[in-house]
Amino acid sequence: MQHAHYDMGVVGLGVMGANLGLNIASRGHRVAGYDPDAAKAEAFARRGQTELDGIDGAETAASADIDTFVGGLKTPRVLLLLVPANVVDSALDSLVPHLGEGDIVVDGGNSHYPDSEKRQRRLAEHGLHFIGMGVSGGEEGARHGPSMMPGGDAAAWDRVRPLLEPAAAQADDGSPCIAWIGSGGAGHFVKMVHNGIEYGLMQLIAEAYDVLARGLALAPEAIRSHFVAWGERRLSGYLIEITADILVQRDEDGGHLLERIRDAARQKGTGRWTTEAALALAIPTPTIDAAVTARGLSDFYGLRQNGSATLAGPQPADGQSALMDAGLPRALEGALEAAMLLTYAQGMHLIAAADAEYGYGLHCGTVARIWRGGCIIRAALLEDLSAAYERDAELRNPLFDPALGARIGELQGNLRKAVAAAAGAGIPMPAMSSALAYYDALRSARLPANLIQAQRDYFGSHTYERLDRDGSFHTQWAHAADS
Amino acid sequence: MQHAHYDMGVVGLGVMGANLGLNIASRGHRVAGYDPDAAKAEAFARRGQTELDGIDGAETAASADIDTFVGGLKTPRVLLLLVPANVVDSALDSLVPHLGEGDIVVDGGNSHYPDSEKRQRRLAEHGLHFIGMGVSGGEEGARHGPSMMPGGDAAAWDRVRPLLEPAAAQADDGSPCIAWIGSGGAGHFVKMVHNGIEYGLMQLIAEAYDVLARGLALAPEAIRSHFVAWGERRLSGYLIEITADILVQRDEDGGHLLERIRDAARQKGTGRWTTEAALALAIPTPTIDAAVTARGLSDFYGLRQNGSATLAGPQPADGQSALMDAGLPRALEGALEAAMLLTYAQGMHLIAAADAEYGYGLHCGTVARIWRGGCIIRAALLEDLSAAYERDAELRNPLFDPALGARIGELQGNLRKAVAAAAGAGIPMPAMSSALAYYDALRSARLPANLIQAQRDYFGSHTYERLDRDGSFHTQWAHAADS
Repeated sequence: MQHAHYDMGVVGLGVMGANLGLNIASRGHRVAGYDPDAAKAEAFARRGQTELDGIDGAETAASADIDTFVGGLKTPRVLLLLVPANVVDSALDSLVPHLGEGDIVVDGGNSHYPDSEKRQRRLAEHGLHFIGMGVSGGEEGARHGPSMMPGGDAAAWDRVRPLLEPAAAQADDGSPCIAWIGSGGAGHFVKMVHNGIEYGLMQLIAEAYDVLARGLALAPEAIRSHFVAWGERRLSGYLIEITADILVQRDEDGGHLLERIRDAARQKGTGRWTTEAALALAIPTPTIDAAVTARGLSDFYGLRQNGSATLAGPQPADGQSALMDAGLPRALEGALEAAMLLTYAQGMHLIAAADAEYGYGLHCGTVARIWRGGCIIRAALLEDLSAAYERDAELRNPLFDPALGARIGELQGNLRKAVAAAAGAGIPMPAMSSALAYYDALRSARLPANLIQAQRDYFGSHTYERLDRDGSFHTQWAHAADS
Repeated sequence: MQHAHYDMGVVGLGVMGANLGLNIASRGHRVAGYDPDAAKAEAFARRGQTELDGIDGAETAASADIDTFVGGLKTPRVLLLLVPANVVDSALDSLVPHLGEGDIVVDGGNSHYPDSEKRQRRLAEHGLHFIGMGVSGGEEGARHGPSMMPGGDAAAWDRVRPLLEPAAAQADDGSPCIAWIGSGGAGHFVKMVHNGIEYGLMQLIAEAYDVLARGLALAPEAIRSHFVAWGERRLSGYLIEITADILVQRDEDGGHLLERIRDAARQKGTGRWTTEAALALAIPTPTIDAAVTARGLSDFYGLRQNGSATLAGPQPADGQSALMDAGLPRALEGALEAAMLLTYAQGMHLIAAADAEYGYGLHCGTVARIWRGGCIIRAALLEDLSAAYERDAELRNPLFDPALGARIGELQGNLRKAVAAAAGAGIPMPAMSSALAYYDALRSARLPANLIQAQRDYFGSHTYERLDRDGSFHTQWAHAADS
């Protein structure tokens, strides 16, 4: 590896690190890789030779020796970390002694946003710049164009931007799916919410699939036809697209693979983090919460087998004609669009609240814009969301954009039909029903929370407010049992 | 105040502390009170003279001087703290230097369970015993018989028990609503879940009220009749009872007070703690989560006024005949019972999981038993729950007790009707619909989580498990867009 020759160093040459490094190099940059596992380092260098062959200015090298690697970088150095979230701190421990004033460390992993804030402070003590950057797009996205959400030390952005921006996905209008998000943990906060929305959308799609497969007993090819058709209209997007693929993926013996996959969903925690952040900020994200819970519930596999034998209720197939009468499967398309928009709305509301609370200085419109391409939740609906912020950059909850609100208003009848029909058929719809309840609560000038306030005052003297005057009030409630 | 004369000292003479101190004294004990606010100390002593007049052995005194107070207690001393959760540590700071080896401190406030574990360790370093004790029952309960959930340092229980047990509520069978819960933060963990269940039940009652008031346009007296009738049958319980009272409480001018209370629900955080604990332990508590979120949503008062003008959907009154056709209000009684049982089940499942994880050594049956009287969630349904644990002490989720499962099975049709009808009428039912989805998920041998696993493997190579063989699998998914 040549000395002081490389534009950027990638630390961690697993699939994400290697792919993103090759992607950046492929835009005409010299990229050095480091991994303590020599086999990974060699593989990266080899892939560079093959995959970047003939690309002007593109060059890669790799080392399993940290001195060699750091020495290979031009100063001030730019290092991009792509290591598992739980080893970021130990990676920094190894790196920091080798770095010098003004060097820049970008953490591109799935770190928790409070950790990114701590790391920025810690590196600043050494005269180092820290950027916490969310990266979404999976392995393919990393190689060919992810959506990237950098935040933290803004002073470092100008130096890093020319390296990262060309590697980002582009939206349909040609603009790059990367932008400076804001200070502190803003980049990882926004990535976390991205993943929370992803949980919500995946659960909504799963519920639609459940109604089609269990409720209407449709064959995988027929279900695929619906998803393909939806994906050609307003539901166009990555998750709908891969669902269509998955439905017809064959197992080795030609059977449908999906039917043989165990229905116990795993999670790595970013959905849960979103729910926790929403709780801390008192922002309602019920559809994301329901999706996190639904994954957890699915994992109680033994209880469910027991419950299917002991707990009474309609069998999905019994409800088939009722589902048809309710206008399904047609209504599912509108239900899904409404519920997806409501999920994006919950996530954007959370981001706006975090910005207000933590002073990130971010723009929700920028977030919607850079999610239009490259990331897992990219979808045509994000064009609508992005347009809403162009109309009103200060919009806190997109549901209150007139056009988006009107669109959901047109669709909400479908969501009602789907929720009511699934309730009757015995098919769980935790995410869709939470989205509907969210919508109905937000269009309720009056909610029954007055009763909750009265109960709290009755048993705990917690006081209540009134509609007709200001102040806090307490009542000596009369027990009327004998009246 | 006499020296070394009192059986117990109460620290913090607010309403809860004063009432619980008088309650304990009224069972024939000498109780000393301490509050830095001399007026509160005097008021406590005065109330003792009036309220305990003629009761054998009952005696109270109070001081605003900590030396006098501590000196007044027999050794080893027993101190009961009833101060706001956020000043427990500073109260301990003041007290500890005055205490001696073997003294016992009982924190009867709403402390967060991890804090109680820390405090037990901290006091143990001084040779002091610490008990973290949940107390439920509100002000009235504290004075006349609360439900109490002590946990922590078991060595101290024998000394404290004769003081507290006579002051506890009694269940209908005469047994006291207090019992040793377990080690560490067990007492406050169980109290936290009690409050989480309380949030769930209150939201479920609010949703039933909403359907009756907004949906069916019933007058408060008519709504009260329903609650009174329900409370005479299987729904008999404290929250149903006070709801009936609240509905007919009159304002100064004779109008209905409830209608003038602002519908923005407040919270002190114990519901949120429950959701956070459930997330940490990966136990589904969707109805508690939905109740926490519903309170938060109600507090977006301005947004809701805006939404009521801009967001389309059925007006509750438009759905009146559909609600009647769906068998409401009659079905609401069964829906409420089913959803309440499912909420208790979620809470008990969480407690069982915490016991397994944290090694509390608790018995869920004991918890159900001491909740039968005194506390806010006391209800006839807890007799059924308690009986379930008598049949099977190891029951992890009461839904899987044959009798309770069968009961919910009989009722679930009502819950479906209520959820479906409210979806159609535009009345939000986040808690009831989450309870239904929970039930339907737990009776689903197959859930659509296989699709979620496939998606995760498609975009992130997260692998999946199979139904037909062991191991983790990854598939090179084919993009079939052109097929």
